[in-house]
Amino acid sequence: MVKMDVNPEKTNKLKYFFEPRSVAVVGASRNPLKFGHFLLKNLLDLGFKGKVYPVNPNADQILGLKAYARVDMIEDDIDLAVIIVPSFKVPKIMEDCSKKRVKGVVICSSGFRETGESGQKLEDAILTVAKKAGIRIIGPNTTGILNTSNNFTTSFAPLPKLRKGNVAFIAQTGLFAAAAFWWIVSKQPFGVSKIIGLGNKCDVDDAEVLEYLTQDEDTKVIAIYMEGVKNGRKLFDIFRKVTENKPIVVLKSGRTPAGMKASMSHTGSLAVNDEIFDAVCKQTGVIRVSGDLEELLDITKAFALQPLPKGNKVAIITVTGAGGVMAADECAKQGLELANLSDATLNKIGSNMPSWAVVNNPVDIEPLFEAVGPEDSIKIALNAVLEDKNVHSVIVLFVAVPRFIPIFDIKDIIKDVIKRKYEPKPIFTHLIGFKDTVELYTRQLEEEGVPVYSSIERCVKALGALWSYKAYQMKKACGGKH
Amino acid sequence: MVKMDVNPEKTNKLKYFFEPRSVAVVGASRNPLKFGHFLLKNLLDLGFKGKVYPVNPNADQILGLKAYARVDMIEDDIDLAVIIVPSFKVPKIMEDCSKKRVKGVVICSSGFRETGESGQKLEDAILTVAKKAGIRIIGPNTTGILNTSNNFTTSFAPLPKLRKGNVAFIAQTGLFAAAAFWWIVSKQPFGVSKIIGLGNKCDVDDAEVLEYLTQDEDTKVIAIYMEGVKNGRKLFDIFRKVTENKPIVVLKSGRTPAGMKASMSHTGSLAVNDEIFDAVCKQTGVIRVSGDLEELLDITKAFALQPLPKGNKVAIITVTGAGGVMAADECAKQGLELANLSDATLNKIGSNMPSWAVVNNPVDIEPLFEAVGPEDSIKIALNAVLEDKNVHSVIVLFVAVPRFIPIFDIKDIIKDVIKRKYEPKPIFTHLIGFKDTVELYTRQLEEEGVPVYSSIERCVKALGALWSYKAYQMKKACGGKH
Repeated sequence: MVKMDVNPEKTNKLKYFFEPRSVAVVGASRNPLKFGHFLLKNLLDLGFKGKVYPVNPNADQILGLKAYARVDMIEDDIDLAVIIVPSFKVPKIMEDCSKKRVKGVVICSSGFRETGESGQKLEDAILTVAKKAGIRIIGPNTTGILNTSNNFTTSFAPLPKLRKGNVAFIAQTGLFAAAAFWWIVSKQPFGVSKIIGLGNKCDVDDAEVLEYLTQDEDTKVIAIYMEGVKNGRKLFDIFRKVTENKPIVVLKSGRTPAGMKASMSHTGSLAVNDEIFDAVCKQTGVIRVSGDLEELLDITKAFALQPLPKGNKVAIITVTGAGGVMAADECAKQGLELANLSDATLNKIGSNMPSWAVVNNPVDIEPLFEAVGPEDSIKIALNAVLEDKNVHSVIVLFVAVPRFIPIFDIKDIIKDVIKRKYEPKPIFTHLIGFKDTVELYTRQLEEEGVPVYSSIERCVKALGALWSYKAYQMKKACGGKH
Repeated sequence: MVKMDVNPEKTNKLKYFFEPRSVAVVGASRNPLKFGHFLLKNLLDLGFKGKVYPVNPNADQILGLKAYARVDMIEDDIDLAVIIVPSFKVPKIMEDCSKKRVKGVVICSSGFRETGESGQKLEDAILTVAKKAGIRIIGPNTTGILNTSNNFTTSFAPLPKLRKGNVAFIAQTGLFAAAAFWWIVSKQPFGVSKIIGLGNKCDVDDAEVLEYLTQDEDTKVIAIYMEGVKNGRKLFDIFRKVTENKPIVVLKSGRTPAGMKASMSHTGSLAVNDEIFDAVCKQTGVIRVSGDLEELLDITKAFALQPLPKGNKVAIITVTGAGGVMAADECAKQGLELANLSDATLNKIGSNMPSWAVVNNPVDIEPLFEAVGPEDSIKIALNAVLEDKNVHSVIVLFVAVPRFIPIFDIKDIIKDVIKRKYEPKPIFTHLIGFKDTVELYTRQLEEEGVPVYSSIERCVKALGALWSYKAYQMKKACGGKH
């Protein structure tokens, strides 16, 4: 396999992938069932303002645009070519791109290294052309780029209506990224700045994209799904650099021999020792999730919506004793400690309680219900712990049991809290009960920026990730060696 | 604390808790904001056919029923008294129950051992009366019983519309059980046979309820949330006995010092060494979940809907390569192995694939889409692996990406599979993509008994639990010592 050298100038070239002024879509098709049709349609539907040139030797016009037989027949300069033709045709297209002095190509086609030896040769061939011509490649075997700031995309998977936001998502793989994106847009309260599908990573890899995203003002959090690592040292350095300013959350699969084998036939990824990768993450302040996409999104949501905690002392407010016990268990596993609530806090909460009730942390507010109702119960407890200097973050565990606990506008509580302008402390919530009410409260809370989780474990894990990143930063600031 | 002896006759007495012919509701109230009102109303609304007697010295009639000043003033025999009055009044009520020769009491009131020393004394006092009179107690500090087969309940938390089913749920705690129950009924595809909230377990404990449920024909799976264990040896013996016929899934919290402390002030549960409890579960074939309620329900759903696998060889059918890699990783963690698909299976799937595609396990069916469409792609792959003798269970990972993959009636696929009457093999699915489509497919699949999970990890963990239980049974059948 041909190796590219690391060169800072090359990184600048990535801007052509995200902000191209002119794009050739090679393999654009009039047939509405073909990927080449979807790809062009996505780009036009999104409202991309740059110039778009379909390339297809068998068509004069596609979706109202003049089509060209070859890339090098386009009169205009071309920043980026997106290629979606059968793999065996790609080397010839690369020659055309070389003639045209195209700056970057995104190769969406499959049928390369991931399929075995002959595919590997094909991939080597296109890389040789690219190296000679100074063309950078994203892919092959990917959906490529989505940039919500300029409505640019190379995705052949249909896209939902976009919600712009502060999360960049790097995935190795196409349809998975598309499905994940649909899931994010339709289910998650945060928005997206960039999505990058890297595919086989024959040239551009995670490290370079991370370098680009470090400087991207639209991106606050970076979430990554990766299978293989090509250049561990380079990744280590860039991880360290990025986490100085932005959290990185990584889901890396191919952890077991069975997973590695499956990964080999998927993106042709090389195996990497999983324990080494774990150590790299720990030393660079990168949050590695142990689960799957659900956990990646759980934690990404936390970083996207909430401030970092100043320390590891947590107040748990709960309606059920059982919830408090489970949350306390999970806090211990996450390196979080239950705060010793101040006397002032205990008094504020306890003064309305029946005589038999004891105020502790976890704060069980159920005994308050009969005295002041559920809405004020939460307000009293939440305001008390947010004012308490011993508390760095708050977990609220609530249930939606219709008729027993009347439905109320949960937004009021959050607005009341926001109004009081406490020093920012992360607030995390878990809800359980009647599905419709849970969904209503979830929507209301997340619109106000308070993340909701459907399991206590997931809720506390997400807070644990914020604390873990903060602890890394604190240690580094104190001159701790990593 | 007074200890009760183990006595087989006492177990039979539990039937009065589940199938009472006559019930006194002590603390029934006309005030629609009081728990004592909810409790009586629940019982009447559910349509319980036994006799119901409200007890309240300050009322003549409650909800249309004649009220009595004391339990022992009721003319009829009383099988069960449900008590929901302030804790200090309970000893007197117990004396009345003793005079009336009541067989069992459910004490819903709080304010006992969980609140400290004086509460502990109160709890000891009522237990002394009960022991002398031969009355069994469930509680205190609980919601008690729900039996869907005769519409009987002692719950003061409002109940949703019931779906009868094969899952019994034992919880230590009231509002949590209520919230969990709402969650189950509104979100889960399985139904419930019994719910039992044990509270402080001053008398009747998990072991006795398990013994009752072993013989309960309505119950196929038993899910337990517990904090403390009172009599480990007794629990060990009953675990062994029950798992011969029915799976037990346990969520035990209070695993860490912080959790134990929280548990102490919740149900006054005594700490139990967590590693010992873990070992007990392993040796008795009990599935202990490491997460929280979400995982408990994930696994319970699996047992409720699917047959056990005959072995640990899994076929993974996936639309995204990334999904296949993650599922393969998780299988390895769960002791599941990827099946070597037979040549016949590989041919059936491969014959429609484009030439560059390679069929493996995980089976990536995306290359089939252009040839036969998504619906037939799944059918071809699913039927092939279900026919394959090398395969014991199947995981299907699907995405809902509108326009790209057209919406189709996913039920057709399942019905096609069911029609063919293969040897039963568990089928588990994971869905990701556009929320509305994911929810539609989830409903359609689960109506046909195919469980759907929103994360690959959770999906494979649930299958792993089925295999773990089956492996325990196989080992035991071969004379393996536990």
